[in-house]
Amino acid sequence: MMKLSRSLLSSRSQLSEKLLAGEANYVRDGLKSHVLISQAGMSTTGHDVSAKGGRIFAPYYVYKGKAAFSVDPVLPTFMKLDSGDLKVKRKGVILLTFAPAIGERKYDWAKKQHFALSPTEVGSLLTMGPRDSSEFFHDPAMLSSNAGQMRKSLSIKANADGFFISLNVANNILKTNERFVVPVTTAEFAVMKTACSFALPHLMGWDRLTNQLPRSSTDSSSSSKVDQQFLNLEWDK
Amino acid sequence: MMKLSRSLLSSRSQLSEKLLAGEANYVRDGLKSHVLISQAGMSTTGHDVSAKGGRIFAPYYVYKGKAAFSVDPVLPTFMKLDSGDLKVKRKGVILLTFAPAIGERKYDWAKKQHFALSPTEVGSLLTMGPRDSSEFFHDPAMLSSNAGQMRKSLSIKANADGFFISLNVANNILKTNERFVVPVTTAEFAVMKTACSFALPHLMGWDRLTNQLPRSSTDSSSSSKVDQQFLNLEWDK
Amino acid sequence: MMKLSRSLLSSRSQLSEKLLAGEANYVRDGLKSHVLISQAGMSTTGHDVSAKGGRIFAPYYVYKGKAAFSVDPVLPTFMKLDSGDLKVKRKGVILLTFAPAIGERKYDWAKKQHFALSPTEVGSLLTMGPRDSSEFFHDPAMLSSNAGQMRKSLSIKANADGFFISLNVANNILKTNERFVVPVTTAEFAVMKTACSFALPHLMGWDRLTNQLPRSSTDSSSSSKVDQQFLNLEWDK
Amino acid sequence: MMKLSRSLLSSRSQLSEKLLAGEANYVRDGLKSHVLISQAGMSTTGHDVSAKGGRIFAPYYVYKGKAAFSVDPVLPTFMKLDSGDLKVKRKGVILLTFAPAIGERKYDWAKKQHFALSPTEVGSLLTMGPRDSSEFFHDPAMLSSNAGQMRKSLSIKANADGFFISLNVANNILKTNERFVVPVTTAEFAVMKTACSFALPHLMGWDRLTNQLPRSSTDSSSSSKVDQQFLNLEWDK
Repeated sequence: MMKLSRSLLSSRSQLSEKLLAGEANYVRDGLKSHVLISQAGMSTTGHDVSAKGGRIFAPYYVYKGKAAFSVDPVLPTFMKLDSGDLKVKRKGVILLTFAPAIGERKYDWAKKQHFALSPTEVGSLLTMGPRDSSEFFHDPAMLSSNAGQMRKSLSIKANADGFFISLNVANNILKTNERFVVPVTTAEFAVMKTACSFALPHLMGWDRLTNQLPRSSTDSSSSSKVDQQFLNLEWDK
Repeated sequence: MMKLSRSLLSSRSQLSEKLLAGEANYVRDGLKSHVLISQAGMSTTGHDVSAKGGRIFAPYYVYKGKAAFSVDPVLPTFMKLDSGDLKVKRKGVILLTFAPAIGERKYDWAKKQHFALSPTEVGSLLTMGPRDSSEFFHDPAMLSSNAGQMRKSLSIKANADGFFISLNVANNILKTNERFVVPVTTAEFAVMKTACSFALPHLMGWDRLTNQLPRSSTDSSSSSKVDQQFLNLEWDK
Repeated sequence: MMKLSRSLLSSRSQLSEKLLAGEANYVRDGLKSHVLISQAGMSTTGHDVSAKGGRIFAPYYVYKGKAAFSVDPVLPTFMKLDSGDLKVKRKGVILLTFAPAIGERKYDWAKKQHFALSPTEVGSLLTMGPRDSSEFFHDPAMLSSNAGQMRKSLSIKANADGFFISLNVANNILKTNERFVVPVTTAEFAVMKTACSFALPHLMGWDRLTNQLPRSSTDSSSSSKVDQQFLNLEWDK
Repeated sequence: MMKLSRSLLSSRSQLSEKLLAGEANYVRDGLKSHVLISQAGMSTTGHDVSAKGGRIFAPYYVYKGKAAFSVDPVLPTFMKLDSGDLKVKRKGVILLTFAPAIGERKYDWAKKQHFALSPTEVGSLLTMGPRDSSEFFHDPAMLSSNAGQMRKSLSIKANADGFFISLNVANNILKTNERFVVPVTTAEFAVMKTACSFALPHLMGWDRLTNQLPRSSTDSSSSSKVDQQFLNLEWDK
């Protein structure tokens, strides 16, 4: 525990300068997207594939009096199979990043906190009407030895002019409890819904469908072989 | 009949190991997409074209207590005409694949069953409101000598928290009747609707519209010839 | 007048064999898209650009008892400006093609009639709810010497199970009045709406936005020149 | 002040011929998109990137009795970082351009006025129902020495058949106050909403997500290094 807390504190100090620079969290997402690959649990004969490099940084920012947050899509990672086909290794997410205000139009991004919405949580956001509310709970270290040491909850509550979006982060190691509350207008929420609806198929890897160009099928012999075996996509198991 | 049932049983045993490996059903979809071409009924002077190779495997999985299913778009197949243009040969589908649970978070994909939603059935799913229900009936061997030997029905029924999606498969040859029931949350159904809405134009082949780059028209003589003949897209038959 | 009617009749007989072949109407759309270019009214210094060749044929068919129709996007035509930029010359349309039934699952495409929905008419279709109805009137020869000789009206009327889509074509030259009525289910109409919603930006030429790759801006001198002149997109006229 | 007003007047006379040509405002948008780059306030080590050249001109026009307007997406500008990644430098906008009628189907584009909808204002438009109204206020010279000298307001008011879209421009320097009112049908508004909904992710730069092709990750050593540091996108700050 001490060891972990120490390593955490040190990692924080190491990152502090970086984090004061605007680019930092993108750099880290870059590393992260790299990690997603080397971490993938499933054993496979395939080669790792990442979207590292040539990335686009285009977060949607909502700046308000007490805090700000950005909405940023993180693409899935892919694995190249021996067949030459690609397989989604880790689903993409919509990364919400909150930062507290430290003056007029000034925000301390070194104190930022992330909340990563999964495709299904995005689906939940897309169904929200003007009077709906929803809440998501995450344990970033779930299934690891750190399980339960950090608890995050994102709450979206309807109000007269739109929604309150709040992030609460309780860290048992650092004994901290941070809260960010950002009022979001109906128009800003509409941008989030439209952009997330556009992004969702990309998070799932379905947009890659459009990259597939047709090829002439030359191996008619093998195709004749399979004719008897697969009469119909649904026919046999 | 016996022959067929035997071939079915044998094909099942042949496939069993494969099917225990995660890749199997994709491999078969690959073969299938190949078959779709060599099977196409219409006689044509054109060349077969398939999307074989370079495929992306990105199913959306819903895992629940008694069963799981995946949602996976299967692209249409195209035929190259002598003009160099492409024509849709077989529409794409949204392939639903169900598997029974055999323990906590364990599913037997060797016992999986497919149900392929046509573009119009996808349209039906897209119109479903929170209180709607619908049911689809398929005979995988329709119009073949095996017609009526296997009956599949997919039912989507609204409940308090979302929908029950159930697949029933009755096989007269194997004398089996299998049933899969998966409760789907409103959020999961929203992902399905958003993803299927995105995929629908691809299933129809309409996404290829964006692949067309303009060319300079040089043959002004021929164009002048058609001027009198076609004053307007609507003018004559 | 006689001359015109004769040419019309002859053009019909000339086309009749072609039209009995499935490809025919695409061939003609191909020619047509070519015509759109050579016809463009505005005088311009630019070069004509067409989407001729490499086309995709992917109509959505609705077959019913008394008639069938297909829904087919026709892309806009572009004009290359001397600047190297592209400009939309003729908006795209959603081409509806109706044919009468001449037996069970048999349709006489030689007797087909077209109705081309403009982007704004597509917008009207997209707003239609389950109980709405709308009607469109076209004169294919509008603004030409043949104005008023052919009148077309497309009617979309809600019914219990979906919509009746009817095309009426009155030809004063051939003294004919043809009517096609096709009942469309809610699911089929949902496919039409989803596909047309996807296609609309393409008909307008807005999908080309995604084709633009960024370039490094080298001409900093000229850019500094314009700095004073254009403080803001909205600043001066 | 005199100086500014003079420069404005002169710039107007200089532009007048250009502005009478249809292309003019596109040319200026081209320059503008160039300016957006050289103007960007933030100091950065990266290289400027613009979408200059190879542009597509595809405005959606609404022509009515007293005035006309066009709806035209203007893409964001990007900045190339030393990492080779791209960053959005200036968000895109939906550019509305109004012109007064000077006869039947004739409009004086030399008297045109722009109103650029930000992504969030587009979000506001997307949420508008058949009975809603909204109004936007812009000061094109906001935060500059000319602040307050020009005031623009765009009003969208529901009526029986659709909406009234009005632009009011008050110029304290030229002592002018111009007003454009264009009635828009429900169908035309549906086209605007569908096209703007399509364009919104492009204005934000999110469409670039689809341009990213995966690469094999070779640097497994560095990835192992970051494993401990970044257990999870949400884990540490």
